[in-house]
Amino acid sequence: MSEQLMDAAVLNEPLSIEVKKVPVPKPDQDEALIKVYCIGVCGSDVHYYEHGKIGRYEVKEPLILGHELAGEVIQVGDLVTNVAVGDRVAVEPGVTCGRCNHCKSGRYNLCPDVVFMATPPVDGAWSEYVTIRSDFLFKLPDEMSYEEGALLEPLSVGFHSMIRGKVSPADRLFVSGLGPIGLLAIQSAKLFGVTEIYASDVVPYRRELALEMGATAVIDPISGSIKDKIAELTDGQGVNVVVESSGNQRAISDTVNVVNRGGRIVLVGLPTVDDIPLNISNLIDSEIDVYGVFRYANTYPAAIQALSRSTIDIRKVITHNYALKDIKEAVEMARTQKDTSIKIMIYPNMEEKK
Amino acid sequence: MSEQLMDAAVLNEPLSIEVKKVPVPKPDQDEALIKVYCIGVCGSDVHYYEHGKIGRYEVKEPLILGHELAGEVIQVGDLVTNVAVGDRVAVEPGVTCGRCNHCKSGRYNLCPDVVFMATPPVDGAWSEYVTIRSDFLFKLPDEMSYEEGALLEPLSVGFHSMIRGKVSPADRLFVSGLGPIGLLAIQSAKLFGVTEIYASDVVPYRRELALEMGATAVIDPISGSIKDKIAELTDGQGVNVVVESSGNQRAISDTVNVVNRGGRIVLVGLPTVDDIPLNISNLIDSEIDVYGVFRYANTYPAAIQALSRSTIDIRKVITHNYALKDIKEAVEMARTQKDTSIKIMIYPNMEEKK
Amino acid sequence: MSEQLMDAAVLNEPLSIEVKKVPVPKPDQDEALIKVYCIGVCGSDVHYYEHGKIGRYEVKEPLILGHELAGEVIQVGDLVTNVAVGDRVAVEPGVTCGRCNHCKSGRYNLCPDVVFMATPPVDGAWSEYVTIRSDFLFKLPDEMSYEEGALLEPLSVGFHSMIRGKVSPADRLFVSGLGPIGLLAIQSAKLFGVTEIYASDVVPYRRELALEMGATAVIDPISGSIKDKIAELTDGQGVNVVVESSGNQRAISDTVNVVNRGGRIVLVGLPTVDDIPLNISNLIDSEIDVYGVFRYANTYPAAIQALSRSTIDIRKVITHNYALKDIKEAVEMARTQKDTSIKIMIYPNMEEKK
Amino acid sequence: MSEQLMDAAVLNEPLSIEVKKVPVPKPDQDEALIKVYCIGVCGSDVHYYEHGKIGRYEVKEPLILGHELAGEVIQVGDLVTNVAVGDRVAVEPGVTCGRCNHCKSGRYNLCPDVVFMATPPVDGAWSEYVTIRSDFLFKLPDEMSYEEGALLEPLSVGFHSMIRGKVSPADRLFVSGLGPIGLLAIQSAKLFGVTEIYASDVVPYRRELALEMGATAVIDPISGSIKDKIAELTDGQGVNVVVESSGNQRAISDTVNVVNRGGRIVLVGLPTVDDIPLNISNLIDSEIDVYGVFRYANTYPAAIQALSRSTIDIRKVITHNYALKDIKEAVEMARTQKDTSIKIMIYPNMEEKK
Repeated sequence: MSEQLMDAAVLNEPLSIEVKKVPVPKPDQDEALIKVYCIGVCGSDVHYYEHGKIGRYEVKEPLILGHELAGEVIQVGDLVTNVAVGDRVAVEPGVTCGRCNHCKSGRYNLCPDVVFMATPPVDGAWSEYVTIRSDFLFKLPDEMSYEEGALLEPLSVGFHSMIRGKVSPADRLFVSGLGPIGLLAIQSAKLFGVTEIYASDVVPYRRELALEMGATAVIDPISGSIKDKIAELTDGQGVNVVVESSGNQRAISDTVNVVNRGGRIVLVGLPTVDDIPLNISNLIDSEIDVYGVFRYANTYPAAIQALSRSTIDIRKVITHNYALKDIKEAVEMARTQKDTSIKIMIYPNMEEKK
Repeated sequence: MSEQLMDAAVLNEPLSIEVKKVPVPKPDQDEALIKVYCIGVCGSDVHYYEHGKIGRYEVKEPLILGHELAGEVIQVGDLVTNVAVGDRVAVEPGVTCGRCNHCKSGRYNLCPDVVFMATPPVDGAWSEYVTIRSDFLFKLPDEMSYEEGALLEPLSVGFHSMIRGKVSPADRLFVSGLGPIGLLAIQSAKLFGVTEIYASDVVPYRRELALEMGATAVIDPISGSIKDKIAELTDGQGVNVVVESSGNQRAISDTVNVVNRGGRIVLVGLPTVDDIPLNISNLIDSEIDVYGVFRYANTYPAAIQALSRSTIDIRKVITHNYALKDIKEAVEMARTQKDTSIKIMIYPNMEEKK
Repeated sequence: MSEQLMDAAVLNEPLSIEVKKVPVPKPDQDEALIKVYCIGVCGSDVHYYEHGKIGRYEVKEPLILGHELAGEVIQVGDLVTNVAVGDRVAVEPGVTCGRCNHCKSGRYNLCPDVVFMATPPVDGAWSEYVTIRSDFLFKLPDEMSYEEGALLEPLSVGFHSMIRGKVSPADRLFVSGLGPIGLLAIQSAKLFGVTEIYASDVVPYRRELALEMGATAVIDPISGSIKDKIAELTDGQGVNVVVESSGNQRAISDTVNVVNRGGRIVLVGLPTVDDIPLNISNLIDSEIDVYGVFRYANTYPAAIQALSRSTIDIRKVITHNYALKDIKEAVEMARTQKDTSIKIMIYPNMEEKK
Repeated sequence: MSEQLMDAAVLNEPLSIEVKKVPVPKPDQDEALIKVYCIGVCGSDVHYYEHGKIGRYEVKEPLILGHELAGEVIQVGDLVTNVAVGDRVAVEPGVTCGRCNHCKSGRYNLCPDVVFMATPPVDGAWSEYVTIRSDFLFKLPDEMSYEEGALLEPLSVGFHSMIRGKVSPADRLFVSGLGPIGLLAIQSAKLFGVTEIYASDVVPYRRELALEMGATAVIDPISGSIKDKIAELTDGQGVNVVVESSGNQRAISDTVNVVNRGGRIVLVGLPTVDDIPLNISNLIDSEIDVYGVFRYANTYPAAIQALSRSTIDIRKVITHNYALKDIKEAVEMARTQKDTSIKIMIYPNMEEKK
């Protein structure tokens, strides 16, 4: 495998991405080499493609993007015992230190030393092969496809939102914003046994998809008060959990008004402006909890277990498929057709995919 | 309604039960009068019928048994606002004080002053009518039958077990003992999103029913080590939650051996002997949690919400149906055919049931 | 006792308060009559006095204010068993329904039907006597004074803040705003075993008092970045819990910047403006929890237990003492000398106080 | 430092321990070399000394015992950043993998691949020097002695017991068994703000020490019913948390009877027999929680923070001090004088200790 070359999509500078030959990486003793069969286009990938940076992270050197992936184990280091060559696996794309306070207390998503794919200067996996420490590989059961394996990454954000929000079958949910995260939050809620899930987005196509993916009812946020609409839909009972995944300023501000007294707000969608007005008097008077959600931790095993025996098909979020060589077209689609392209999948080894 | 008489099944002494005329109760200001359409036979009812007592509770005066019920609101006191005449309702059968430390801290099932139906000297509801404080009435949605309403009571024990055991989709469960509580614990687990549920009982019929009601696989506890069998079924992963609902001494002792390191044991089934040996060294070395479960609290609204939109049909536990006048036959069936009579339902107003 | 009159301080309209004779209330069967020995002046009392309303609560009829009190049981209703005539007691001033979902689930502070003293139209206890349902009375051990009994009310807000914020000895705290609530939050933190508590207020006197009451160090918020100052004081470790009790807009906005990654923010101080800008991107990126605090629940027994064997003296917040007849002077002091009058105590039966 | 020799106490076979020269270990890149100034004799050390094994762990090769230690950093590997040469540090003696499910979810004490000092075949630190991965080193503040640093290990078991048992100032505790763990559990409870702590042991000296270390009252378990005695001491209120640290069969069985309804039992003391009878009916009827405690996780930083500003002096458990050369005498003292030798300290570099 050494000295071989592979195709990889390299972002040279904003809006300039090209597929070119780079060396196939070599796994360390505790790593595996993965042949990438399916990898998604995330909003963050598109943002790096368009702007060259997100907050404090800036693309200064040519960078390979992509971090939502599944593939096959091709080679393993000497110390690897949890996977073997030939295994079909999902890849959790952030390797954490295991030694800081956050890691040791179970919140490894807050590890300051995480090495996370496609976050500059760390390369991602829009490429034929990638290496990763083997404890971040999770075997896919036969009944799960590579597409589902790749989607475990955005699903994990939804799953983690449920855990952070202490969501149970006793809850009624409202999900605002129906991009991939919002839609997969709906399906995460269903996996957690929630039976009433209301959802909103300004785009009709997304609302339709939400209904198809399990929302109890959908709301056009333009059409009037969301709180009133939810009261109507729930016979006055309201919702006690709000999952905000739009990042929209108005939607974020509205969460405090929408949720019931004693309720919980889970904030997932990153806004583009910093300071967003919240009605703090209401938050105090109603004794609301607010939980920020940053990535996820410990979600892959549970999500695989839940999904593999479920009737839920998370692949409904996939709207487009591309070969790696067409990456430019794929990213442009994601950038310019935000309303209708929910999740775009890239297949770096399309012809060989099992 | 005053001065009217109704049929009620009165236990005079062990093994002596008869249907006779008693006054229809009158609701207080904060109570409602319920016309009972469906009411179950619980193991505790059978135990009082057979032995005249359970632990410190003794039947000293003639007593009406029965506490798993649903019916129609016939009359309401002046202060009642949450239900109205004509409402179809499930009845939570224990009225708590609302003022003790347990009530105020959310664990009203531990209220020392609870007035619980069919626990001597409090009458139950094997009768045509019953009164209860209205905050223990819960409207049934149109899609829920009276049978399901009555079954909310034993289902609540299963639901509460999930809450006590902090059960989530990340868990693998083992349920030991497949009477009504065990079977409804399986279905509670499914409502909480659990996808792998292993179950055991010595009776083949019950194991078959468990499979039909959602168990992933069933185990005959006579056939060998349960731990080994579970390891085999789970590809070596084991279970991290055990719900013990058999009350069997050996099964209780075995919980500590069966559960994974760091796991949780939920004890629901009351044993008939007091002192049961547990491997405490294992419990400590594996840092296991054990949670006792006594009845339930705050389960009815959540269970109604979860059930009403679910495909789960809890009525599968019902094996027999009787009119109130045949109560003796019903209780004898429950007493003598424990293996095949899972849940027996009584219909005090059978002819009028909607 | 019937037909007797007592002195009470009645607010007729904003800024117009007078002591006049009103009937001594008679306890219901489940109530006790309390001779009020010590009762505090709360910020909300002062606000009603000055503005005649707080949010949706408006003083439309003459109203007796005051809800932080302790006294002696003078008479009990027939059903009262937990206290007896002669008992020295603290009074929890909000009587809840015990039947709504919030009450039943242990969050009775959110009960929509609570009858809370000095919240219009419910009279408070700036009077010689008051009645209350006996389950809201808590016996004071001999070693606790009536002043401490009365202070249990604002201390409860601090105690509840610790519970809401899951505070433990593992935490480092920052308390912003050093009025009575902030100062008693510091002492609550000490009762919960917290050893590092940083505190800020613009008023030097309050900062000094905070140091005297147990703050590790104090910060003048005008003097520069609070985050930097805390970093300096903690050798770069920062604080992982912020308790905001100032209600100041800037301080509330700053909480998200001050707290460590993965930290918790407890919002207690009600702001006077509705919409306050929060850096939501930071809240998400750092996966922060925010908890609103509204009054308290189940705090009195624990606070009495903790205080009675502690070396902490919460009476340090008391800066002034008045007889009931001087109520106008007392309230004007509270209204006009906010910096130096922390907690003002009224003694409706001063001459007889034991 | 390389090729140098040091003194170490080597257990050759049961009852045969000798101090001899062994090579000074060399730190890996992520390790530090510690000069051991103070190290305790643990019950497990004595057990290995006496019996050559504990459960499945057997001393097959000569082994250095000892795992409760503090010392000075003498040398650091290239990758070490959290400590520097000259730092005074406490050593957490179990190095975990950081990669298994238990480690990743915050319960690293359950890591199956932990390398724990003085657990065969891993050497401990009854020696002049020892190496350890640097993330298990914790700087001691100036106000903390090496003795306190070494005692952080057994204190951690007490600390972890408080966390597992969700102990707060609202609780009343009963601690059974007053060896080092029980005594340090009392002090942990005090650090967590608990003000009522009842304690029992058959040995009068230990009861006296418990009173000196903060127990509210002590009970001779021989003298009658512990439940009755506690009822008497608490004015009938009882205790809602029991911390069992004796390992005594009868004390373990009694926990279920002693604790209040709705209470929690924390099992810490390992019994010498496997199966211990528990009244499971009581456990269920009273809806009790039982928590096993195995070692500890994430306790060192919190314990250092809490202790360093506390008036509590954990050194009161130290009853004897020895130089390393007198190890045989020290261990024999621990083995034969169990009642009066609570914690024995060894000083491998006594003459140089700062």
